[in-house]
Parts: sequence; C-alpha cells; structure tokens
Amino acid sequence: MPSDTSQPSFVLVRPQMGENIGAAARAMWNFGLDRMRIVAPRDGWPNPKAVAMSSGAGRLLDEAQLYDDLAGALADSTFVFATTARQRGLTKPVYSPERAMQIAAEKVAAGEKVAVLFGPERAGLENEDIAKANAIISVPVNPEYASLNLGQCVLLTAYEWMRQSGDVVHEATDLGKGDWATGVEVEKLVEHYEDRLEEAGFFYPPEKAEGMKTNLRNLWSRMRMTRADVQMLHGVMRQMVRWKDRG
Amino acid sequence: MPSDTSQPSFVLVRPQMGENIGAAARAMWNFGLDRMRIVAPRDGWPNPKAVAMSSGAGRLLDEAQLYDDLAGALADSTFVFATTARQRGLTKPVYSPERAMQIAAEKVAAGEKVAVLFGPERAGLENEDIAKANAIISVPVNPEYASLNLGQCVLLTAYEWMRQSGDVVHEATDLGKGDWATGVEVEKLVEHYEDRLEEAGFFYPPEKAEGMKTNLRNLWSRMRMTRADVQMLHGVMRQMVRWKDRG
Repeated sequence: MPSDTSQPSFVLVRPQMGENIGAAARAMWNFGLDRMRIVAPRDGWPNPKAVAMSSGAGRLLDEAQLYDDLAGALADSTFVFATTARQRGLTKPVYSPERAMQIAAEKVAAGEKVAVLFGPERAGLENEDIAKANAIISVPVNPEYASLNLGQCVLLTAYEWMRQSGDVVHEATDLGKGDWATGVEVEKLVEHYEDRLEEAGFFYPPEKAEGMKTNLRNLWSRMRMTRADVQMLHGVMRQMVRWKDRG
Repeated sequence: MPSDTSQPSFVLVRPQMGENIGAAARAMWNFGLDRMRIVAPRDGWPNPKAVAMSSGAGRLLDEAQLYDDLAGALADSTFVFATTARQRGLTKPVYSPERAMQIAAEKVAAGEKVAVLFGPERAGLENEDIAKANAIISVPVNPEYASLNLGQCVLLTAYEWMRQSGDVVHEATDLGKGDWATGVEVEKLVEHYEDRLEEAGFFYPPEKAEGMKTNLRNLWSRMRMTRADVQMLHGVMRQMVRWKDRG
C-alpha cells in the first residue's frame, strides 16, 4: 500500500469496464500519481482486463485500495473533489482542472488528505456521491461536444496535478550534437561568405552592396547556430568554390 | 473542407490503427478543433475502424485532408510544431504543450497557418519529419514512465489549445435551486436557533454562553447558504420543537 501522502488519491467510483481502470492507472502514472482507490467495481476485483490494459502501471492496480462504498473510501479524506460533466443543481464551488489541482497542491503541501472522485463510465457520479464532495471539477470542453471518457478525464486531471505540483520546463533547446557557436566563429563564417561572394560578384550593384551584406549578417545572427552548423556552412561555400575551380 | 483558419491543423503522420485516428478526432472536437490532416495512413483511407471510434466527431474524418507525404501536408503552413516523447539530437526549441499552444494562439491570431505533427503509434515521428518542424512539443511526463498513446497526446495538446485560446472559467458556483440567502435571512435563522437553544438549555454553563453563541454564528456565516438552505434549517429546528412538544 502506498504510504506517501504527498499526492491526492484518485477514487474510481463504481467503474464498469476493466479496460478503463487499466487506462486510468496508466494515465495516473504518466504524471507520477500512484494512489488509486476503487469503489464497488462492477466486474469485481482483481480484474484481468484492467491488468492487461495497465501495461507498465500494473503496480497501481496491485496497490489499489478497494472499498464497498464511497463513504469508506473517503473516511480519511479532509477535502474531496468530484469530477462531473454537467451542472447538478447542488450548491457547490465549481473549479477548472487547473484551479482545482492548484488548490489540491496547496492542501496536500499543508498535510491534508485530498481525494478526487471519478464516476462510472455511462452516467457519471450520482448526486448522492457529489454531495460528499467539497467542490466540483468541470473540464471546459466544447459545449457542442463533451465526450471525455473515464481514462481521458483521469488523464487531464493528472496532467494538471503535474502542472500545478511540479516544475514544468516551458522552454528549452534540444542542442543536439555539440555546443553553440561562439561570436568569433560566427564572425569568421560571415567573413568567409562575404569574401567569396564578393569575388563571385554577388554584391551588385555597388550601391546596394552594403544593404545586401547587412541582410546576410542579419540572417546568420537570426538563426542561432551550433559549431557543427558553422562547420557545415563553411563546407558548403568551400565546395562551391571547388566546383567553380573544376569548371 | 473546413475553411476557418483561426485554429491550428493537427497532422497525423503515418497513423497505424484506425481506432486511434477516431480517438484523435474525438479528442480534437472535445476542445473545438476540427482541422485534421492525415499523411499516408497505414491501412488506407477511409478507414471503417476510425469511423466506428469517432462517435459524434465523424465530421472531422469526413473533412480530413489526406496527403501522400508530409511535405504536401505542410505546403501551406508557416509554423510547424512536432510532438515527440524523447530528445532527438536535432537543434530545435522544445516547448511544453502549454507554452507551445500559447505561441500557436498568437501566431494563429496574427494570421499564420500553424500545424502540429503527431507521429505513428509505435515509433513516433522520424528525425526526417522533425527536421521539417520549427519547434518541438514535449509533454512533461513521469521520467520513469512515459506511456502516452496517440489519442492521449492529441487530447493534451487540444486541451492546451483550448486553455490558451479560450476563456476558461476557473471558479464558479453551481448555485442549484434558488438564490443566495440575504444577510437578514441569515440573521433571522441565527436568532431562531439562539432562541430555541436558549430555551432548551443548550448554552451552559452561563460563563461559556457567549463564546458558544459566537461559534454558532461563525458556523452559519462560514457556510454560505441559499434561501432553500435557510428554510431547511428553520424546518429542522421547528421539527425538533414539535417532537419535544409531542413528548
């Protein structure tokens, strides 16, 4: 049984298809969540179809805690979110997944035990279930077409948990082989091209030459180059000169 | 064929399973995206399994544009993102889905034609495909377990498109039946309870009575109540008094 309390429990309430329980386990573990609770699964437990679908995340199913009813699953929880696709006529705060997982991260950091409820595939949570929750999570889907299944709802919520609780790197560069070219390396490339293109009569007419050189320099600086890029571009120019010399 | 240019195209590159193409269509349409392009699908096109899986989003498949190669699918694009699960050794900016869809929304608003590439299920995009993209999207998954399938990758990207391009309501209250109670209504409830509980001898011992009353008032104000809630709580107290009177 997972003992770590630094994450919310995801509670599948009366799930129907084993495949969807397995898909939920995979969705959770993709984002580092591994505390699953299962309330009254339709087809009993353990469920071979859940195991077959959970490839690589089967540990979550082995460690999942099983309950006969929702009250039991929530016995130790201090704050409960319920996911639902539609308005229920219950007076309750309604949060986006983003805001809900912000709140969850704050509460978990403060030592609270947070649970998130996901309803059965066909009908979703009953109002009786939702009345046990402190707040509702509603995914902002296309009003013309709301068709998220159980695994997808778990996936988006787990993704938002990761976004709100982790350190997402928003921008990086996959540098590939080698380092960025230094200023002097770029400058030598610029000179190489200018010299050869000058010889080749490229900067014509003379009154436009300066502008053309500026544009070319600007192009080199705009595209940030690695050392390998610079070497390749030197090679391009050398080869063109060789070709000319052969001709 | 969809003519609206105010959204990116999602380009499925050499998709294998029809089911996943259908799932991708559903994922897109959940978040209001309907411009799908398909490059060289393994099992030909149209694909009955894709149609079967696309329930309610079949229009996207009917309108999907089919291409023999990726260059054709990108002929009109001015900016291309490629989704990939691992580093590729190509010098290229790498964005989170969130940052990538922010950039996409800005470019689309400026009239650019943006495409997002999704690779085949088993191996993902080839480096040759990624070299055609301006930037990479990498979903920040659990480093111990990265197991997003094609439909899930499309789902998360489409979700981020909606978040970055739309107006997500982060907090609301599902008010249920009726309006919030007014201050005077709450005050009358407070008095009703205090009066009856006074008669019942609840505020005892006398030196603690004020503190008990304050705690009770604080409870009422902490839980924001609707008119229906207030009426129900009046009814609770009246009924207890009736019960006592019968006894």
